[in-house]
Amino acid sequence: MDNRPIGVFDSGLGGLTVVKELKKLLPNEDIIYFGDTGRVPYGTRSYETIKAYAKQDMAFLKSKNVKMIVAACGTVSSVFNMENDNDFGVLYTGVLMPAASKACEVTNNNKVGVIGTSATVKSGSYEKMMQAINKDISVYKNACPLFVPLVENGYTNKDNQVTKLVAQDYLKPIMQNDVDTLILGCTHFPLIRDIIADIMGDGVTLVNPGEQTAIYTANVLKQNDMLCERSQSGNYEFYVSDSVESFSQYASEFMGESINSSVQKIDINSY
Amino acid sequence: MDNRPIGVFDSGLGGLTVVKELKKLLPNEDIIYFGDTGRVPYGTRSYETIKAYAKQDMAFLKSKNVKMIVAACGTVSSVFNMENDNDFGVLYTGVLMPAASKACEVTNNNKVGVIGTSATVKSGSYEKMMQAINKDISVYKNACPLFVPLVENGYTNKDNQVTKLVAQDYLKPIMQNDVDTLILGCTHFPLIRDIIADIMGDGVTLVNPGEQTAIYTANVLKQNDMLCERSQSGNYEFYVSDSVESFSQYASEFMGESINSSVQKIDINSY
Repeated sequence: MDNRPIGVFDSGLGGLTVVKELKKLLPNEDIIYFGDTGRVPYGTRSYETIKAYAKQDMAFLKSKNVKMIVAACGTVSSVFNMENDNDFGVLYTGVLMPAASKACEVTNNNKVGVIGTSATVKSGSYEKMMQAINKDISVYKNACPLFVPLVENGYTNKDNQVTKLVAQDYLKPIMQNDVDTLILGCTHFPLIRDIIADIMGDGVTLVNPGEQTAIYTANVLKQNDMLCERSQSGNYEFYVSDSVESFSQYASEFMGESINSSVQKIDINSY
Repeated sequence: MDNRPIGVFDSGLGGLTVVKELKKLLPNEDIIYFGDTGRVPYGTRSYETIKAYAKQDMAFLKSKNVKMIVAACGTVSSVFNMENDNDFGVLYTGVLMPAASKACEVTNNNKVGVIGTSATVKSGSYEKMMQAINKDISVYKNACPLFVPLVENGYTNKDNQVTKLVAQDYLKPIMQNDVDTLILGCTHFPLIRDIIADIMGDGVTLVNPGEQTAIYTANVLKQNDMLCERSQSGNYEFYVSDSVESFSQYASEFMGESINSSVQKIDINSY
């Protein structure tokens, strides 16, 4: 048993889609979330900068005495290699491995599509991970850099012409390769899942890394006998690096419910 | 005479459209440019964070012994008040005042439109400035937060359907008020000037703050007898807070020519 909180971080608010899934599966766990809203987005930056930012984010969560850190960010999960880049002495998962494993499990024709930020797609992380699991898997990928700003500006309605046009452009080269599985490799993308599903068609299974990461996190804690022993609902604390106001304005959209917990601004450069 | 360089900064690369105009007008001046590519964009952040970042940017330029600082960023120019927020003991201009003055000069019906980032539009800076010059001016404004990512992802062609659709949405409420002048209040917007001009129609004059700021800078230096006495072309030094590679990849698009000068990465948090 371990009653310490789970630490979750993301470049901004997209990671709240992972918190939403964690809450469904592990409603009694305390969660501490850090969203780097003062430096979002990460997906268009260099690996060097992404790694430096991720180390600070993890150091902050570590200072909060969390029992496990979840990088709820497709970009960080792809670029930051926990083994090589640092050892924080705490359980860790990104969204990459849980999503890659699920895709390998559900594909029938071994053709898997991956969409994500520029940094995620450029890293080649998903194909490396999937081909380590099953060397016969072929991966077809495309960066979708406009999806994040479109989601953040509310262009998420199923009938939004702009998002549909952009999505058609981005998904076309992947569809041409007859994939039967598509990984939504950025935590913002579940918010336009309907538009993506419509274009990909019924024969394609969409994998939501947030959902898979929540399942993986629950399993790791269970196997290590580190689930909390609380019977009431968990407490949530949110931290950001830009103003608290802008967090509160958008966070409920990603969480799928309004957020009444404490939100505080921190100076991430001091970590 | 003053042979020290002019310092120019922006949240990212948009400010290079101002450098381009400065180069046309003052080809012999040395220029030091800082683009905060590790923390771009500013336009969606809180005033508090924008001011903190701008102070660091200016402190860096000051450390380079520049004779004048140009905030080549619509957001910083709108949010950072040089008089109240700091005194750097160096000549300063943003893009706000030169653009506002020009708009007041060219409007015939006293109806001026302003487009910019969310922070610029929310600040009300342009209407305050124009109404101080001419109290009969009416200002109609709209935030265009998707223009920056569209430009940065190359959606700039005159026939781009996505940018046209987004621009129609953003410009419609301004056009309904019969403005005869429109300020392109963000240094990225000149790259989609053709699309904006097409929608606004022939009767509307577009004001490019970068062009006006270059004219204003030249006048200030001349009046203070601080132009350089060099007869050969000026030297350019570029500094960024993310990797040099990503700068070089996009910078030529904003400058309208390839950049062969030195580019260096700095740690902006140490200023």
